[in-house]
Amino acid sequence: MLNLLNQHRTVRKYTDKPIDSELLTKLLEATCRTSNTGNMQAYSIVVTTDATLKQQLAPTHFNQPMITQAPVVLTFCADFNRFTKWCEQRQADPGYDNFQSFMASTIDTLLAAQTFCIAAESEGLGICYLGTTTYNAGEIIDILKLPKLVVPITTVTVGYPADLPEQTDRLPQEAVVHFETYKDFTSADIDQLYAEKENSDFYKQFVAENKKETLAQVFTDIRYSRKNNEFFSDKFLEVLKKQGFLSVIN
Amino acid sequence: MLNLLNQHRTVRKYTDKPIDSELLTKLLEATCRTSNTGNMQAYSIVVTTDATLKQQLAPTHFNQPMITQAPVVLTFCADFNRFTKWCEQRQADPGYDNFQSFMASTIDTLLAAQTFCIAAESEGLGICYLGTTTYNAGEIIDILKLPKLVVPITTVTVGYPADLPEQTDRLPQEAVVHFETYKDFTSADIDQLYAEKENSDFYKQFVAENKKETLAQVFTDIRYSRKNNEFFSDKFLEVLKKQGFLSVIN
Repeated sequence: MLNLLNQHRTVRKYTDKPIDSELLTKLLEATCRTSNTGNMQAYSIVVTTDATLKQQLAPTHFNQPMITQAPVVLTFCADFNRFTKWCEQRQADPGYDNFQSFMASTIDTLLAAQTFCIAAESEGLGICYLGTTTYNAGEIIDILKLPKLVVPITTVTVGYPADLPEQTDRLPQEAVVHFETYKDFTSADIDQLYAEKENSDFYKQFVAENKKETLAQVFTDIRYSRKNNEFFSDKFLEVLKKQGFLSVIN
Repeated sequence: MLNLLNQHRTVRKYTDKPIDSELLTKLLEATCRTSNTGNMQAYSIVVTTDATLKQQLAPTHFNQPMITQAPVVLTFCADFNRFTKWCEQRQADPGYDNFQSFMASTIDTLLAAQTFCIAAESEGLGICYLGTTTYNAGEIIDILKLPKLVVPITTVTVGYPADLPEQTDRLPQEAVVHFETYKDFTSADIDQLYAEKENSDFYKQFVAENKKETLAQVFTDIRYSRKNNEFFSDKFLEVLKKQGFLSVIN
């Protein structure tokens, strides 16, 4: 089991082999056992296999080819719609149109997503998370017909791996794990933690190809720039308002 | 593996047996392999075993006994501090003090948390998620000395199970899973999906003990009330501002 987790790699190319619907049901059954907030199960999973729908979703994920190439695309959504409807039918006043409830349902959503991915990998499937979901959540809402109090948080493409990609590097464990309390980093710590990454031929070439001086600049100037982050912050907050999760702030 | 996931239950009582530090390191190693945004690994894990610190954390989790009883408490945090410091040392302009970056790091954090929990369960440990983390994030920040751009998202207590609790119920899969697009629920759908839960003796007694007319009212009036949700929404948004994740909005 630890071996499976340690072997994890993102799979972006899939064979033509479809995923048996019985297997998919089993994976989703295991997913539904995941820990969640107060057993409200405040999330939903939209399973998309239809080619036309995948084509419509593709631009919302900046046309990353996995969306149309993978046999199955799962959109994991924070969801207080179902629970709210239940409360309304049971003489109860639901108060889930707020940021705290958005956070609770986001937690439920992401724990379920990761359970699904680990379950899928244990059955020989390969997965890829798409971080573009929060960028274009509004467009995804329209395509997947998500009602109020439902917001897409992450997307997973899944299929049988066409090849076995290299594992990506990770920072040393001490970059991520702190004992007892948080030990903030000195500049010497930072140099040490990022040394292996920065000195690798792979990243040196990556920096050169991107015509930057440092690896960090590839992130700040190209991949995750301030301008884009601020643009997509506003856009996602508008989506939260529109879907009813920030009603108190309005 | 699916069997392990299907056997999941929340464990709130632990034996006195400590968790071997070598095992903990292995679990954290597997955790660090989890998918994350752009390989920035924008999260951190604070591992707390010190009795005094656990006592300090206890009230932030409304004195749920797991915090002091579990041998190990892990606080999973959204973290753009380390990455931002690296950028600043590498002539790069980090733009991660915004809501989009908070969402990306929250995603990284929760996927890692769930990998840890599954890894721990596969090694015979029991886990419990504490949803109280976002309620009292500000107080946790003080205790664990979290710097700017670090926000606790969830907490996991872990130890060897003192007993094997009953599994909690789950809604039928069709409550959570939608095929192709979202199929919103009619009132008949809601009745059907919640029927088994509402008709169980366990929940009937639960409703009676709480002196409510419906199960939904136990949630809306007692467990997750509008008043509390709105109070904690404001409080958590203040924490996001204070930690620097909403700098554009200010």
